[in-house]
This record gives sequence, C-alpha cells and structure tokens, in this order.
Amino acid sequence: MTYTKFLFIFIFTLNNSFAQIQKKYSVDAETVFDKGEKINNDNFTGTAYLKMLTTHDKENPTAIGNVTFEPEARTKWHLHPAGQILLVTDGIGYYQEKGQSKKILYKGDVIKCPANVEHWHGASDDSYFVQIAVTNNDKGSAVWLQAVSDEEYNK
Amino acid sequence: MTYTKFLFIFIFTLNNSFAQIQKKYSVDAETVFDKGEKINNDNFTGTAYLKMLTTHDKENPTAIGNVTFEPEARTKWHLHPAGQILLVTDGIGYYQEKGQSKKILYKGDVIKCPANVEHWHGASDDSYFVQIAVTNNDKGSAVWLQAVSDEEYNK
Repeated sequence: MTYTKFLFIFIFTLNNSFAQIQKKYSVDAETVFDKGEKINNDNFTGTAYLKMLTTHDKENPTAIGNVTFEPEARTKWHLHPAGQILLVTDGIGYYQEKGQSKKILYKGDVIKCPANVEHWHGASDDSYFVQIAVTNNDKGSAVWLQAVSDEEYNK
Repeated sequence: MTYTKFLFIFIFTLNNSFAQIQKKYSVDAETVFDKGEKINNDNFTGTAYLKMLTTHDKENPTAIGNVTFEPEARTKWHLHPAGQILLVTDGIGYYQEKGQSKKILYKGDVIKCPANVEHWHGASDDSYFVQIAVTNNDKGSAVWLQAVSDEEYNK
C-alpha cells in the first residue's frame, strides 16, 4: 500500500469515528429543536430537559414539548385524560403501557398513547433519547403516579 | 506546502463540499420521518410528499403529517376550523396568513396558526422544506381555497 493510499484511508476512518462519537455523546449535534431547560420537578427520574414548542389554549388544546432524556432517565408512570402522541427524533428510548411489554424506540418511531392508559417513557440505559410529545389537554393535564422502579426499567 | 499537507486540505474540502451538495439536493439525508408518497390531490401547487404519522380518531382529534415540499411547491390558501401547528424540521420555507407579510421559516421554527385563519405554507424557491403538521380536527377538516399565485408567492 502506498503512503498516499494509507493516509486516505486513515483520514476517512478517523472522520467516521469522530462522527460516531459525537452522535453518541453530544445529543445537541442532532436535535432539530432546542434542548431547553433541565426538568426540576418530581415527575422524572434522572436528568431530562424540556423545551415547550407551543402551549395549549382555549382554542387549541394541543401542547407540544421537546423532551431530551439522558441515558437511564425516564418519566414516572402517568396518564393523559385525552391521550398523547410521541414522535421520536433521536437516540434510543423505551415506552411501556401498564400490563404490556416495554417497547424499544428509535428515530422516526411514532407512539399513540390512548387516553387514561398508564405508561412511562424515557431513554435506554446507554443512549440519549429525544422525543416530541404532542399532548391533548382537552380533558385536563397529565396525572402523575409512582416512579418506574429499576426492576421495571430493566425488565 | 508539502504534498501530504495539500492532500489533507484537499480531502477535507472535498468532504465538506459533498456534504453541502447532499444537504441541498437530497432531502432524504436529513429527514427524521419518512418522506411518504407524492401528493396527488389538487390542494398543492408543485411537488410535495406526505407521510401521515398518526390520524385523528374519536378519542384524539390530533392528526400529524410529515410534509416535504420541493423548491417552489406550496399549499393552496386554506384554513383549519380548530387550528394547526407547524414544526419545521429541515430546509427553508414560507408561511403567510391573509393580510400579513410572508414569513421565512428555518429548521427548529414553530408556527401556531389560529382557527379559521386563511394561510398557506411551502418551500422557498431554492430549497426543500420539511415540516410536521399537527392539525386539530376537533371541528372538522381543512377548508381549501384558491391557489397561491406566483405574484403572492414571490412578494
């Protein structure tokens, strides 16, 4: 192999490796919408960020938030009186409805959570997870329940 | 300049140029959600694609579609009886409400269109435009009106 060929392959490989490292550890590089502020309320376990994209009002009951979960971060169990839709924009996450198996979510996945169904969502244990939450507040806000235990999370 | 240094800079420049060309002409490389199928109805001017991410039902009136406009493609003037929210995920687009100036939209922008307000949206004249449309169908579907003329589009 000539020196030039070697250099070519070396640079190409290095470039790809950097891109992969950046993808895993710097979620900012990939998100479409702002990460927002760290969530400080008691409804989440671990570190998550919220940027509200639009709030509901009398005319339109739809509230939309961009939620970024660090690895292992998740919501508590909760329900929405008029349902919620989740659009996955980056990373790898989990979603589970009460009595069902945990689903693994990837970029491009869409979840439609029915009204009043207990569920939780969050990041997988080794990746960030970014989702747009489209919540119908027509019949009131989310009802928050108990935390997702490590046993439930890892099952 | 040594031959090696020159090669290094040459490869780096070439790599960046390819990335920019790909970004402009291949919208597929950047979209989070599927591009879907070409829209064949009469409500659009030019070439646009739609992938429904979720449809509305009796329980949740929210329908979400991923819409990809080719340069110069746009909707006709229309209105939503219960409003619509647009989330811009890629490209450069236009949005205009009747009687207002045309707005230029970029990745990360959010538009909340009030109920019954006549408006149109589409791509700019030299870029693709990708948006997630979150439509509240609580009071019925969109009402479609006249086409956006070239004069209105270019104003």
